[in-house]
Amino acid sequence: MSFAELWAELLPLGRDERTGGYRRYAWTEADAACRRWFVRTASRLGLATECDRNGNLWAWWGSPDGRAAVVTGSHLDSVPDGGGYDGPLGVVSAFAAIGQLRTQGFRPARPIAVAAFTEEEGARFGVACLGSRLLTGAIDASTARQLRDRDGVSLAEAMRVAGRDPGLLGADDELLASLGACVELHIEQGSLLAGLGAPVGVAAGIWPHGRWRLDFAGRADHAGTTRLPDRRDPMLPFAATVLAARAAAEQHGALVTVGKVVAEPGAANAISAVVHAWLDARAPDDATLAAAVAGVWAVAQQEAARHEVQANRVQESVTPAVSFDAELLARISAVLAGTGQPVPVLATGAGHDAGVLAGRLPATMLFVRNPTGVSHSPAEHAEPADCEAGVAALAAVLADLAGQ
Amino acid sequence: MSFAELWAELLPLGRDERTGGYRRYAWTEADAACRRWFVRTASRLGLATECDRNGNLWAWWGSPDGRAAVVTGSHLDSVPDGGGYDGPLGVVSAFAAIGQLRTQGFRPARPIAVAAFTEEEGARFGVACLGSRLLTGAIDASTARQLRDRDGVSLAEAMRVAGRDPGLLGADDELLASLGACVELHIEQGSLLAGLGAPVGVAAGIWPHGRWRLDFAGRADHAGTTRLPDRRDPMLPFAATVLAARAAAEQHGALVTVGKVVAEPGAANAISAVVHAWLDARAPDDATLAAAVAGVWAVAQQEAARHEVQANRVQESVTPAVSFDAELLARISAVLAGTGQPVPVLATGAGHDAGVLAGRLPATMLFVRNPTGVSHSPAEHAEPADCEAGVAALAAVLADLAGQ
Repeated sequence: MSFAELWAELLPLGRDERTGGYRRYAWTEADAACRRWFVRTASRLGLATECDRNGNLWAWWGSPDGRAAVVTGSHLDSVPDGGGYDGPLGVVSAFAAIGQLRTQGFRPARPIAVAAFTEEEGARFGVACLGSRLLTGAIDASTARQLRDRDGVSLAEAMRVAGRDPGLLGADDELLASLGACVELHIEQGSLLAGLGAPVGVAAGIWPHGRWRLDFAGRADHAGTTRLPDRRDPMLPFAATVLAARAAAEQHGALVTVGKVVAEPGAANAISAVVHAWLDARAPDDATLAAAVAGVWAVAQQEAARHEVQANRVQESVTPAVSFDAELLARISAVLAGTGQPVPVLATGAGHDAGVLAGRLPATMLFVRNPTGVSHSPAEHAEPADCEAGVAALAAVLADLAGQ
Repeated sequence: MSFAELWAELLPLGRDERTGGYRRYAWTEADAACRRWFVRTASRLGLATECDRNGNLWAWWGSPDGRAAVVTGSHLDSVPDGGGYDGPLGVVSAFAAIGQLRTQGFRPARPIAVAAFTEEEGARFGVACLGSRLLTGAIDASTARQLRDRDGVSLAEAMRVAGRDPGLLGADDELLASLGACVELHIEQGSLLAGLGAPVGVAAGIWPHGRWRLDFAGRADHAGTTRLPDRRDPMLPFAATVLAARAAAEQHGALVTVGKVVAEPGAANAISAVVHAWLDARAPDDATLAAAVAGVWAVAQQEAARHEVQANRVQESVTPAVSFDAELLARISAVLAGTGQPVPVLATGAGHDAGVLAGRLPATMLFVRNPTGVSHSPAEHAEPADCEAGVAALAAVLADLAGQ
């Protein structure tokens, strides 16, 4: 099975016809369709599949017998109306690379596993890299079980509906002990490779990043009769906070974004009772991240006070800076130097499962060129030739790491 | 049947248990329950009911035979999580007033009608006073049929589901010709009466007001990787517009509000593709309204251009200033002077069906004191004694207008 064939099979699953974007949220029917594709594909490649206690899927070439397996893969879930590459490119490339290695007659000296981690985007339950965080114990199982989606459905309920036992959730040290290294392939979510003229790059590390929910609670009132001095309108401090987020990003050389807002009751002729907003922040180092977020929060509190609105902040997740394993990076760079292409080493502001696993085993990532840099959008794209270059690079890396 | 008995019957219909607010949207099950209550109540009072071509309900004391009927009533629908008084107080008070007049042995010399107008709030299909606008021809039937709710359901489809024929929609000159005057009772949506110590007031007029949808179209992107100069983030000009709306209101002595916003795709870790916002504006006169809205729109366009975002503006409704009929006002003031209470004459920024009907027949309104001024909120409230005062005032006015 070629990359193109596998890609074409996965392409229609969970795609919204109107927007052309994907809505592959954890433990939904779209997610189940992607999981069935994963199991069917692994089976055709002769790989044994298992679903771990936390719902992550694994396809094994060789049995997980403690010989420091090499993990590749990525995730299959999407942000709302996301593109098709963010996540799936890593899983499809992993299967395609294994297919190539098989065809070449390669016999791995240690096991190779293709993983598809659950809820990497946090699009349904709000915690990014949920599957890998559970696997490594970075999030507590009982906390995770109580996470709720926007309809109030808990992770535990959603897993039960999908036929999984949420009672099994939690750190899986036995599985982790069987893993020796991790190399996740991912589309670049920026345009550095495009600028450098390189189809493939290697990740040096991940910026520290976090997500905060800001709740502004005012008082619902009639928009057509309530005098300005009588208003407690939470939309006003919210708006000031959006502008403060941009200013903080500029000031600190960081990325700070408000991409999700829910105003209640949400009537055109009513002053809002509450505005919920989500602040996404990333920075080159932990201190800069903290300074940028503190600056935004200071404006939020000050503007809330000015409008007699209550401001509250909930930290949904914070991931410290990740530096990928230097030895693994050097080894992979050496392998890829043989391709004749430049193979730049990049840092990224995006969180990934490889970043979570990096706390437990040597890990890094391969990035595939994104000509426009657009991601988390239906317009996300990679050229077929670059995808093939990614598969070839991954196959070379896997052959090296699992070859001895 | 007393006011309190009627009020208690209607109270639970369409109330959300979590918020305590009402969700009585046109042509939904909650709306149908309110309509059944209307018909049952009218029937117990011996009034003949009809549903007009536009879905407005009418309960007739005396037959509509061209003798310049007196119309009272209001509406039963609500904004999202609205209070129980806005609309229903006028309908319940009308039935209670007719009950009192019957008990007193009053025999109307001309018909009295209790109306419940459809979709006064515009909460489902976006056009306020939709039922009275259709009745008077202020909105075209084919335009109305194509209005859609947030799920994409058209008014025509929603009416068919509710068993009504949308083909009948349109101006009803025969019905209008049978009406001689309109007096709508409504809870005050401000606290002027409370400040003046008066339980009941009379409306002098309605400020001109309008609603505009502003669409900011940028480009979805990854919040964690897209460099600031590469972003086309529509949340930024939206936020600047919210603040400009408040500034314009202060500058012009107007009310300008953003209470509804929808950001798409709405992921915490994605830059928005599009932000839709609704601008509600009211002012003492038409020129001031136009100036305030133009000021907000100028900022919206300028900030959109600065962030390479497309800004688009759609006027959803504009209602010019309404001055209620001076002769009717004087007559009602004279009737109510006999109550011994002060009866202030007020202007309001809120639109009402009486304001729409005022273009076709003498109309005005009675307002009942709102101790906090809060409306479009579950906290909306009127004291029972003030509601009773409203019923007594309405009964006196109806007896005068229909007594000769």
